[in-house]
Amino acid sequence: MDLVSIEEIRDAASRVKGAAVRTPLLEQSWAPLWLKPESLQPIGAFKVRGAYNAIAALNEDQRARGVCAFSSGNHAQAVAYAAKRFGIPATIIVPDVAPRAKVEATKALGAEVIEVPIDRQESSALAVAEERALTMIPPFDHRDVIAGQGTVGLEIAEDLPDAGVVLVPLSGGGLASGVGTAIKALLPGAKVIGVEPELAADTAEGLRAGRRIEWPMDLRARTSADGLRAQPSDLTFAHLQAVLDDVVTVSEEEIGEAVRTLAHRARLIAEPSGATATAAYLSHRDALPPGKVVSVVSGGNMDPATLAALLADRG
Amino acid sequence: MDLVSIEEIRDAASRVKGAAVRTPLLEQSWAPLWLKPESLQPIGAFKVRGAYNAIAALNEDQRARGVCAFSSGNHAQAVAYAAKRFGIPATIIVPDVAPRAKVEATKALGAEVIEVPIDRQESSALAVAEERALTMIPPFDHRDVIAGQGTVGLEIAEDLPDAGVVLVPLSGGGLASGVGTAIKALLPGAKVIGVEPELAADTAEGLRAGRRIEWPMDLRARTSADGLRAQPSDLTFAHLQAVLDDVVTVSEEEIGEAVRTLAHRARLIAEPSGATATAAYLSHRDALPPGKVVSVVSGGNMDPATLAALLADRG
Repeated sequence: MDLVSIEEIRDAASRVKGAAVRTPLLEQSWAPLWLKPESLQPIGAFKVRGAYNAIAALNEDQRARGVCAFSSGNHAQAVAYAAKRFGIPATIIVPDVAPRAKVEATKALGAEVIEVPIDRQESSALAVAEERALTMIPPFDHRDVIAGQGTVGLEIAEDLPDAGVVLVPLSGGGLASGVGTAIKALLPGAKVIGVEPELAADTAEGLRAGRRIEWPMDLRARTSADGLRAQPSDLTFAHLQAVLDDVVTVSEEEIGEAVRTLAHRARLIAEPSGATATAAYLSHRDALPPGKVVSVVSGGNMDPATLAALLADRG
Repeated sequence: MDLVSIEEIRDAASRVKGAAVRTPLLEQSWAPLWLKPESLQPIGAFKVRGAYNAIAALNEDQRARGVCAFSSGNHAQAVAYAAKRFGIPATIIVPDVAPRAKVEATKALGAEVIEVPIDRQESSALAVAEERALTMIPPFDHRDVIAGQGTVGLEIAEDLPDAGVVLVPLSGGGLASGVGTAIKALLPGAKVIGVEPELAADTAEGLRAGRRIEWPMDLRARTSADGLRAQPSDLTFAHLQAVLDDVVTVSEEEIGEAVRTLAHRARLIAEPSGATATAAYLSHRDALPPGKVVSVVSGGNMDPATLAALLADRG
């Protein structure tokens, strides 16, 4: 399979400049840990990079007709935000179980939001795109989306050339594919480790088996990390096989503790999905290769009540 | 009085590079508001800029003997952090009412911490400095400290040349003096507005009167914004008279609401002092001059229980 190249990621970097925040790499004073706070992006997650890059790569005619997406939340906001910047219409199909904060934020960005049962999300989106002649911007199964997320890795390599380990959360695999591709190209000595919730560890199992393994949605839906319930496509799985050195799985308790540590020590609000990579550092340090550790804090969108409950729990 | 110049702030910028994070200016998608998240500094507050600049400006002999400071918290950590980077000893005198999180973090940075009653903090620090031949790094009453804090303003001017209003919290006045000096030099059309808690509004009263007005500590100690209980010195008051266009005061309720809004909308943990400038935007927008508004989120250090209580309060 023809994998995304570092040149495509460099092209993405020049496209997303100005639309995505060039996030700093935050060295922590309490641990040999560097955090990449993608929670500080305009829509609170790295997804703005891939969505913006994919829309920027469309031709004028396609773009003017508008875009469409389906997402459990952060990709929805990212497509809405990018479309708003381009001044084009966006239609977002979200599962009716999505956190209210994410749904409301998507609407506030001017997108039309259609809520459907989670198992009809993809089919509904395809039907709407067909009917309205919209271009579908997929959450991860697309070269331009992967290349856009890869700009996170490009920036990590620029800011910490002697990084030893890069921890990145795994779900559909777009972020890990892009970051891994950039790191392997620019810092060949660094290890790239994917991190999954134990309750949605389909990719860990699939990589061990050497092929994609399906986990039913009712199993994956158990994790509090609602952004990590997707599974890789053929395209992202091929990337993950090529660029990941290992996968670490973390428990729900470890994810909650990472949310609290990021708030108290790093002053960052991370949603459970966004704290998952840091949970691997905090709770599985001994299982990681040696060297300076970078953890991608992928997002920070959460219902206020969920956040309050997580921070009130003294674990 | 000879005020700090933009050249001194530029010198500070080259000194603190690498020691202080070059924080991004975060454009918000929910409001025409730009946040300068100094809560992301290694010690969770802007104070690292001034402390590091002041220590960097010492001669080798002075520096080798070590430094001393008194502080309600964030300046303590900043001096400890900067001393650690230089590999020199730091002795910090803290009031026994300081938040535990700040005291523990200061010790964890390798400083010797001496706790004293709040009204003996300054005299104890002077005695220790004399006895041990340490150089005192004051929290705000020092040109190099003011110049270091001014680098926040330098970066704001670089990142948003068409800023209309810059909101900055007021306490001892080091941050506001430095930021105001930089903004007035680089963006002469922008207004610089100081923000104070109503319960510690000595500077608002002093600027109206045209002279420093003392508020007794037991009055100032009422505000939850524990970093904003200090009062300007002659040096900082002269700067504030020269560079501030206005002062806005905010209630404790407005500060609490700003902590919640920063967490939920901007995914930033701000301590009450750090949220005070943003409270002026959220609750007193009509009192501000027109134009793009920048708010300095000055710090994010708080006891976990205080944070949990603030976020659990739905205001």
